[in-house]
Amino acid sequence: MSSNAELQWKGYAVHDTKLWDQFQVTDFKPKGMEDKDVDIKIEYCGICGSDIHTITGGWGDIILPLIPGHEITGHVVRVGPKVTEFKVGDRVGVGAQVGSCYNCQRCKSGAENYCLKPIHSYNSVYPDGTVSQGGYATAIRLNELFVFPIPDALSLEQASPMLCAGITAYSPLRTNGAGPGKSVGVIGIGGIGHYGLQFAKAMKCDRVDALALGATDFVNTGAKNWVEEWTDTLDIILCTVDVSHHIPLSDIFATLKVHGRCIMLALPDDALPPIEAFSMIASGVLLGGSHIGSKAEIVEMLDLAVKEGVKSYIELLPMKEVGKAVQGMKTGKVRYRYVLKVDI
Amino acid sequence: MSSNAELQWKGYAVHDTKLWDQFQVTDFKPKGMEDKDVDIKIEYCGICGSDIHTITGGWGDIILPLIPGHEITGHVVRVGPKVTEFKVGDRVGVGAQVGSCYNCQRCKSGAENYCLKPIHSYNSVYPDGTVSQGGYATAIRLNELFVFPIPDALSLEQASPMLCAGITAYSPLRTNGAGPGKSVGVIGIGGIGHYGLQFAKAMKCDRVDALALGATDFVNTGAKNWVEEWTDTLDIILCTVDVSHHIPLSDIFATLKVHGRCIMLALPDDALPPIEAFSMIASGVLLGGSHIGSKAEIVEMLDLAVKEGVKSYIELLPMKEVGKAVQGMKTGKVRYRYVLKVDI
Repeated sequence: MSSNAELQWKGYAVHDTKLWDQFQVTDFKPKGMEDKDVDIKIEYCGICGSDIHTITGGWGDIILPLIPGHEITGHVVRVGPKVTEFKVGDRVGVGAQVGSCYNCQRCKSGAENYCLKPIHSYNSVYPDGTVSQGGYATAIRLNELFVFPIPDALSLEQASPMLCAGITAYSPLRTNGAGPGKSVGVIGIGGIGHYGLQFAKAMKCDRVDALALGATDFVNTGAKNWVEEWTDTLDIILCTVDVSHHIPLSDIFATLKVHGRCIMLALPDDALPPIEAFSMIASGVLLGGSHIGSKAEIVEMLDLAVKEGVKSYIELLPMKEVGKAVQGMKTGKVRYRYVLKVDI
Repeated sequence: MSSNAELQWKGYAVHDTKLWDQFQVTDFKPKGMEDKDVDIKIEYCGICGSDIHTITGGWGDIILPLIPGHEITGHVVRVGPKVTEFKVGDRVGVGAQVGSCYNCQRCKSGAENYCLKPIHSYNSVYPDGTVSQGGYATAIRLNELFVFPIPDALSLEQASPMLCAGITAYSPLRTNGAGPGKSVGVIGIGGIGHYGLQFAKAMKCDRVDALALGATDFVNTGAKNWVEEWTDTLDIILCTVDVSHHIPLSDIFATLKVHGRCIMLALPDDALPPIEAFSMIASGVLLGGSHIGSKAEIVEMLDLAVKEGVKSYIELLPMKEVGKAVQGMKTGKVRYRYVLKVDI
């Protein structure tokens, strides 16, 4: 079976970062087909904060026109001759990465998400010169290493936002030792944060709390004594709040236990506020970063989501409403993730 | 035997932060004797960077007159009735902490160095109102929990700077997994750094290197490509360079392996340069703090120093030359630690 003939290559593209909520259906050219590539007919794509940072130019110049989107689910419609994991018809997903060097020590040890030559799902350039285009589109072509099987028990629209927001919360919990005996705090309950709470519970952490610091900044008059309340209580904090200069890092560090860790998952346009070295030594704490997750972690996460009933809280919209949806993301209106259904 | 009658309470004190290198021999009153207290006749005291930050007012206002010094060795001359670890005549040392709350979970779990109510060896106030005074002095009185036995094979002058500089390097190496299979880089080869190199070797790390970034700042024209040279090579970095705004954190993060850690051991007067969240995610790295070490770690460190021949590189001076010595610390002249011999 080959549905190749039917496949269109069209997507909702931004043509100007100043008009970042004005999308036009635009044709694009996929990369050349390689032996380990898979073609996927896209059905759903979630909207990630990265999409907004990119299309607004907040993270720097971009290659226009650009089709964003990297929380992609759909069906396999074509496989290259050396594809071993997938067959036509399989339910699959794609996250924020579509390629790597495949040869470095990181790639070879299952840490391909930390390859220093990544190809991102959009706004990256393939070795053949093709610009990668994302999931607000009809189809995507990529190496099977970055394609994930979706468990039968998980609907595609539920799975979509797990492939970036979900794994962004899951991977650092796993890497930093979340589990029985540990306390986890999540700052910012949005797309990533609502998974952080659920996955920390699914991992059987002793205590999992949303830190009441307000959803869009840290001014919350109802929680003035939050530092005192939380001092020395948390092993791991996931900070998902995307407002760099408002982040009270010293206060956050004070809530950590000895050698506790605050993992910054948001990637604000600006730098974080300056850190006083003293604020890190009182409890010997660590501030860290994390980048999506490896394929092994994503497969494991999807299994855990099924087993423990982790739910994506989504608002489903037809893809033509993408302009409204990116506005809702930018203004923090979404609860907790928009998922677009392909309508081209 | 009691040498109490002989004990003097005098030290070299600073009387004005503007005249931070002008010391005068000054009497002081020790805290009231308690059941678990030990009196120590001081023989040697090392000079730590903290002493300079404190006496210059760089870390804020201080209680004057102030006798600095927290790398102390000497002999026990008196023990309280409930002291169990020491007897008169024992060779002992004291580091940067002389008290804690003794009752919190941190104190009870052997992490007394992270007690949130620490009493520092100088410039702290005891519950009875006494101001703690440091080791540029004839004697010190403190709870035996913060007194360390010095192994017979280690001279007191060799042991002195290990009690702050040494443990400041040793504890984070141990906490962050230094050992076989790991690569360690040390930035800044001074008092702390020269122990970092030696203890990392003593712990049998695969590779231990001084990062050639210059001794007092990061401008080193001979090492322009150091980031490329070191990319993705290090598991643990100890950063001991005390010049906050010159620290190229993004470059340092680039030298780390996946989930590698940079531990900031210097405590500059100013905040660290702002961090771009992106610079931490490329390899999911962590930036951390560390605070001296626990008694258990200090005892372990001194044993390892004996066993593996770790050496303190010191310049021994009579204590009356303290003014010259603190100048030498401030200007980075020392190689690698001044130790003062009591001469009062």
